[in-house]
Amino acid sequence: MKNLLIATTALVATAGVAAADISVSGDGRMGLVYDDRDNAGLPGDSNIKMSSRIRIGFSASGETDNGLSFGGFVRADNSGGGAAGRAGSVFISGSFGKLSMGDVDGAAKAAVGQVSGIGYTGLSDLNEITYLNSGTDLDGDGNQDTLYPTPSALYEYAAGSTVFYVGIGQIGTQIGTVSVPGQLLPAVGEVGQSYSVGAKWSNDNGLTIAGGYEATNDVAGTGDASDWVLGAQWTNGTWGVKGVYLQGEWAGFGDVQQYAVSGDWTSGATTVTAFYTKKDLQDFDTTSESYGLGAAYDLGGGATLAGGIASVSPLNDGDKYTVGDLGIKFNF
Amino acid sequence: MKNLLIATTALVATAGVAAADISVSGDGRMGLVYDDRDNAGLPGDSNIKMSSRIRIGFSASGETDNGLSFGGFVRADNSGGGAAGRAGSVFISGSFGKLSMGDVDGAAKAAVGQVSGIGYTGLSDLNEITYLNSGTDLDGDGNQDTLYPTPSALYEYAAGSTVFYVGIGQIGTQIGTVSVPGQLLPAVGEVGQSYSVGAKWSNDNGLTIAGGYEATNDVAGTGDASDWVLGAQWTNGTWGVKGVYLQGEWAGFGDVQQYAVSGDWTSGATTVTAFYTKKDLQDFDTTSESYGLGAAYDLGGGATLAGGIASVSPLNDGDKYTVGDLGIKFNF
Amino acid sequence: MKNLLIATTALVATAGVAAADISVSGDGRMGLVYDDRDNAGLPGDSNIKMSSRIRIGFSASGETDNGLSFGGFVRADNSGGGAAGRAGSVFISGSFGKLSMGDVDGAAKAAVGQVSGIGYTGLSDLNEITYLNSGTDLDGDGNQDTLYPTPSALYEYAAGSTVFYVGIGQIGTQIGTVSVPGQLLPAVGEVGQSYSVGAKWSNDNGLTIAGGYEATNDVAGTGDASDWVLGAQWTNGTWGVKGVYLQGEWAGFGDVQQYAVSGDWTSGATTVTAFYTKKDLQDFDTTSESYGLGAAYDLGGGATLAGGIASVSPLNDGDKYTVGDLGIKFNF
Repeated sequence: MKNLLIATTALVATAGVAAADISVSGDGRMGLVYDDRDNAGLPGDSNIKMSSRIRIGFSASGETDNGLSFGGFVRADNSGGGAAGRAGSVFISGSFGKLSMGDVDGAAKAAVGQVSGIGYTGLSDLNEITYLNSGTDLDGDGNQDTLYPTPSALYEYAAGSTVFYVGIGQIGTQIGTVSVPGQLLPAVGEVGQSYSVGAKWSNDNGLTIAGGYEATNDVAGTGDASDWVLGAQWTNGTWGVKGVYLQGEWAGFGDVQQYAVSGDWTSGATTVTAFYTKKDLQDFDTTSESYGLGAAYDLGGGATLAGGIASVSPLNDGDKYTVGDLGIKFNF
Repeated sequence: MKNLLIATTALVATAGVAAADISVSGDGRMGLVYDDRDNAGLPGDSNIKMSSRIRIGFSASGETDNGLSFGGFVRADNSGGGAAGRAGSVFISGSFGKLSMGDVDGAAKAAVGQVSGIGYTGLSDLNEITYLNSGTDLDGDGNQDTLYPTPSALYEYAAGSTVFYVGIGQIGTQIGTVSVPGQLLPAVGEVGQSYSVGAKWSNDNGLTIAGGYEATNDVAGTGDASDWVLGAQWTNGTWGVKGVYLQGEWAGFGDVQQYAVSGDWTSGATTVTAFYTKKDLQDFDTTSESYGLGAAYDLGGGATLAGGIASVSPLNDGDKYTVGDLGIKFNF
Repeated sequence: MKNLLIATTALVATAGVAAADISVSGDGRMGLVYDDRDNAGLPGDSNIKMSSRIRIGFSASGETDNGLSFGGFVRADNSGGGAAGRAGSVFISGSFGKLSMGDVDGAAKAAVGQVSGIGYTGLSDLNEITYLNSGTDLDGDGNQDTLYPTPSALYEYAAGSTVFYVGIGQIGTQIGTVSVPGQLLPAVGEVGQSYSVGAKWSNDNGLTIAGGYEATNDVAGTGDASDWVLGAQWTNGTWGVKGVYLQGEWAGFGDVQQYAVSGDWTSGATTVTAFYTKKDLQDFDTTSESYGLGAAYDLGGGATLAGGIASVSPLNDGDKYTVGDLGIKFNF
């Protein structure tokens, strides 16, 4: 069945017949970003640059005769990866839970997530910790999502106020991207099976507690990598705080410790956010530290004025840099 | 005229004004595939892999003041090729017939087609024979559609119960993909003009008989390639059988013989399919043989549970392999 | 807010609630093109080729609570560039004017534009002059839009019958495409800041007069480039004439003079167009000259039958060639 997103659909729909199944959405942003490193090391270059983008996404959905839901999502800009199973995702769900496949998060990340970020561009996701299993890295956002990217499957099941998650990466050994010791940067090599579990519990008073475990076998022939992660979040509508803590032993990296905290304060259309994120590779005596402050003002209709400023000392670099941005982001 | 696929369109449409002209559709799939070859020859690799994808397509249509229809189709994932004329296609049609241009089949393939395939992924289209002229190979499905890919034109005309087809490839000499002798695999070189004719006759009792002729001139300086193909198909709604037979002489390949048969049995939501396909390059003493069995269960709403198992001995490989899959496919 | 372009949207819309925000449009074309140069220099090649394409575009829009408009546009085929800010564009507008960012024209081009072109394919835009600042060249149309492509911002403000334009390229030094002296062809190198201003005045009698100035600093270390451009246009509905004149000094090219004129005659559904365009690089004693004649017939419903024939002597080639096309173009 091809569903026609045209006026005949509208006519049919008003007569109560089955609805069409693909929705089109999008996002955009425009503004200025600041980085106190010379942007390309060129004489006469500027620390301030314009930065804009527009992306279109497609959300598909349907329902089988016996009431199972199914669907998927992909963006136009990563539609090539979506057709190859490395971007976007598809799912089927019912009383048994929800099973997704494609560029999906590992269970630990799906349960615990990330603390709040800042800026109209997200400022390179400096607020985020690095998970072992968090998708394929091919979603085109330019940020490193995962150390060992691979098409994955994620199973979710909600029981009362608790949601359980189970994830696995592509089955067997992969020739793919493996991490660079001491830098949390990807490189090419062989990795074995990845898998993960997680759970998230929420109550009616705005409290959420979550935890997860994730592992990847046979990383570049050097051994296994695994970690556990805990997160807690509380909000009363005006104030919100979130913290995540990850500890593990990653083949090639040795002992890994990461933690991040954020606080949000909302008043009317304004939200002010601060975060602090630290990544510690003890065996390499290397530490990355980021902290930042941002504010966002909801203009209504899908537009938000947002800006932020952050300090970052990258893992592979002893120096400290200031970055910032100010612009408008859109949801269509 | 830009047609707005937004609520104003719906409002206008309910008032009876001209309809918008682009429909959005899609397909997805998720499940497991099996191949008894080591998938990448890696130690610890698995013969079972997850396989999923999502694709979005756009179907455009319009009508001129004097009643000619026109339109086109392209997917998001091959939209770059569509803008360059190597993927997707456009058409104009009326009482004179239908003329399409872009990634369109040759006339022989358009008339005769392929026998039924199996599995939720199609199992690498093992059921299919190889035509000389069948599009640009740039449709992103990962399978070899044609030996000599080139943007093409296809003209179709229906007269009573018979449909006539005429096709030509890009005019003149192409620098493009030419075939590897003995393997039916493409390589780069020069090929001359390709053209094809075909016809398909159907009656009211479910019988279809079709035939075609196709040729490509000056293949890599070694001569011409041509073949004729016959097909017959019969269905009574419960049972369906189809057979195709191709014989020709292809420059570089010598004598080529291919045939395929399939049978379908449908009961309620269930369809069971079997096929046998053989490709014979007599001058190279090389034969490819595939056979398989599959079943599909229509879950309704656009979802189908499907699986299949097949045996394949590729042309360039004396061994025999088993492949299979099981999963769900979606139409949005 | 994700806006659902599905039947529920239509239902909601008819109830008067906020409209969805993304419209899908498209264009296509099919026909034959002629070039009296051997197309690929191959023996047996043809001077006539088939040429077709289909493209899909997405136009997003929204409105903030205080009445500012915002939105953007990107096509499926350049959506990867759109997500990276090098194709497509976003904007915000209100009583202060309109600010766009992404693949936007410089102010001189936005004000003055180009004379009329011919043919169903546009015949390589032979009618167009070359501006210093006119977008990112990554819009996928295969034509050179600008000598120094870079993501840009364009500000427009209308005061009565006059529209003012201000444009800047990406801030600071770029590593990007710079021009090849004597050929108006791009190559890779460093360029500095680009900027431009323009204005366009129209009256009620079909007269438009426009002018602009544009500049790029530090072109490949050889100096600055700048030019001014004037344009005038008049139409009474049946007849239309337009002329543009550009003069400047471009680092590496020396003195640059370009001018173009076109005339259109419309009667019912038929439009006949002629143009003459000349590009003169005096310091290199190199001249490009193009002239052509075309006709278009509006078939209604978004389809147009169009053809043209033109003579061109390219800058880097003393010879003279004839090109032409005939086909149908579609707007969906």
